[in-house]
Amino acid sequence: MSDLPKSVYLNEEGPREGFQIEAAVIPTARKIELVDRLARTGLKHIQVASFVNPKAVPGMADADDVVEGFRPVPGVDFTALWLNQQGFERALTHRDRLSINGSLNLYESNAFLKRNQNRVADQQRAAQHELIAMYQAAGVKVHRGFITAAFGCNFEGDIPVERVIRLVGDLLEIAAGHGETIDHMGLGDTMAWATPERIKRVVGAIREAHPDLDLLLHLHDTRGLGIANAYAGLEMGVRMFDTAVAGLGGCPFAGHGGAAGNVCTEDLVFMCEEMGIETGVDLDALIDCALLAEKIVGHPLPGSVMRGGGLKRFRVAS
Amino acid sequence: MSDLPKSVYLNEEGPREGFQIEAAVIPTARKIELVDRLARTGLKHIQVASFVNPKAVPGMADADDVVEGFRPVPGVDFTALWLNQQGFERALTHRDRLSINGSLNLYESNAFLKRNQNRVADQQRAAQHELIAMYQAAGVKVHRGFITAAFGCNFEGDIPVERVIRLVGDLLEIAAGHGETIDHMGLGDTMAWATPERIKRVVGAIREAHPDLDLLLHLHDTRGLGIANAYAGLEMGVRMFDTAVAGLGGCPFAGHGGAAGNVCTEDLVFMCEEMGIETGVDLDALIDCALLAEKIVGHPLPGSVMRGGGLKRFRVAS
Repeated sequence: MSDLPKSVYLNEEGPREGFQIEAAVIPTARKIELVDRLARTGLKHIQVASFVNPKAVPGMADADDVVEGFRPVPGVDFTALWLNQQGFERALTHRDRLSINGSLNLYESNAFLKRNQNRVADQQRAAQHELIAMYQAAGVKVHRGFITAAFGCNFEGDIPVERVIRLVGDLLEIAAGHGETIDHMGLGDTMAWATPERIKRVVGAIREAHPDLDLLLHLHDTRGLGIANAYAGLEMGVRMFDTAVAGLGGCPFAGHGGAAGNVCTEDLVFMCEEMGIETGVDLDALIDCALLAEKIVGHPLPGSVMRGGGLKRFRVAS
Repeated sequence: MSDLPKSVYLNEEGPREGFQIEAAVIPTARKIELVDRLARTGLKHIQVASFVNPKAVPGMADADDVVEGFRPVPGVDFTALWLNQQGFERALTHRDRLSINGSLNLYESNAFLKRNQNRVADQQRAAQHELIAMYQAAGVKVHRGFITAAFGCNFEGDIPVERVIRLVGDLLEIAAGHGETIDHMGLGDTMAWATPERIKRVVGAIREAHPDLDLLLHLHDTRGLGIANAYAGLEMGVRMFDTAVAGLGGCPFAGHGGAAGNVCTEDLVFMCEEMGIETGVDLDALIDCALLAEKIVGHPLPGSVMRGGGLKRFRVAS
């Protein structure tokens, strides 16, 4: 009936997604504290900061200090985000501490692309060739592709599945044309248009066209369907997810007030472990991180399991 | 691949589930206002109050006034809850305004049964025969069965599927022995132990044993899986759900010890409608009710779509 994976790989994006949108100034030491704690939960990938213009995103002005401050843990990939050459060059100066990988990105929504990057589709395509050249010049492999607004868009409405397939193919081709191989393709539900059935339709169509391509889901919980969408992804064999501890974060550019963060890491870990899907993560340690994150930002965060708790204690007691 | 129903039937339990746990006194007029508004959204079933001991549940002391106060709407069933003969008799005095139906109830967890009702399993079974006698004496049909803690229990741990099947069979047999026919069986995830896979396993096994029995899911969102569990139910053809507008009955931001309410009505309506499953409900009108509910209780409620909004306005604009 379903095609659940044996294990999942989670990209923890909480520190980056979360701290960049907080209104209050979060002390650098507390950001580092959360990263250090997350690195000891069993998570294998933690995105710690973004190298962006501090005037545009003041919450990331201390990105270099955060990156220099955390304690590396063997087997854990620490990564950062950048949006242009300048950011990439800042990231490169931390090459001893960060995993530096190249990522390409096309947009399903031209209207959102215009709004977010001030580019038209052809410019965005051209920019991918330049990105690859930049990565290759620095000896950095391109390993990830990402499709923004893959499931629908506030500015363009529903996105036909055929368009998503085409864009995925384009991105693979662009990479291949430069001798690069994308090993996983992210699908972003940037504005929370996805439903479980839509996830299945899009993922199913991509799997049919590219059976060997690993897919990653980047899901926002704005309309409460984040975990249900993740489940639909699992049913289709998806085994990579971007998540945020405690549900930290939200998209600052999505054009409406109710935008919520990525799907909550510990809620997804709970669901997976309860269904026999390995996450490698210690749920109780992760819940402690979620509670710490809430303390750090100073306001309630949307996670559920951080409040409800796991089931282990009841199984032991009963 | 899946067996999604064409339409769903939602039992709105917000006014009853929600107002009974609020710490502050909610004015009767405001409860009535919410019921009246809900009755004009397209919802076909609204549980408006419970006839319980006002000393135990002070928030329901005004149950009679609420029931006498709302404006009946043709085609909408208004119901109430009771836990014993005294409560049932109070409900009967409102027979002109309420749909009065008999419901039977067994517990998957003996430990929880002891705690909640101070009964052992045989006493609970015996009580069902007495219940039927009480309903028959009043000329009230028994139409619903309900299994409490069908997916797991804080006091007994995991519940084997075979036990659920047996209890469902027992309840059908008890009813049949008195010439009554249960037309739908509720499965309560009372302590939020369910996962989508567990829902599928339990629902699948019951469907195999009783292919003509309609199932209803009563899901709590304590661990963030409520909507994902509802989706799994839909995939198995379940078309009846207990829900609560705005997620009334729980509060992520206050001291309810992590317990959350029923799955949120408007989040489920949003998901269903986006997947082509008819709910008969006007989402925008329902969102207005959710915002009203939040105003009435005076603290944030856990619904998502009430904040994120639906997608119709974007489709019109794009």
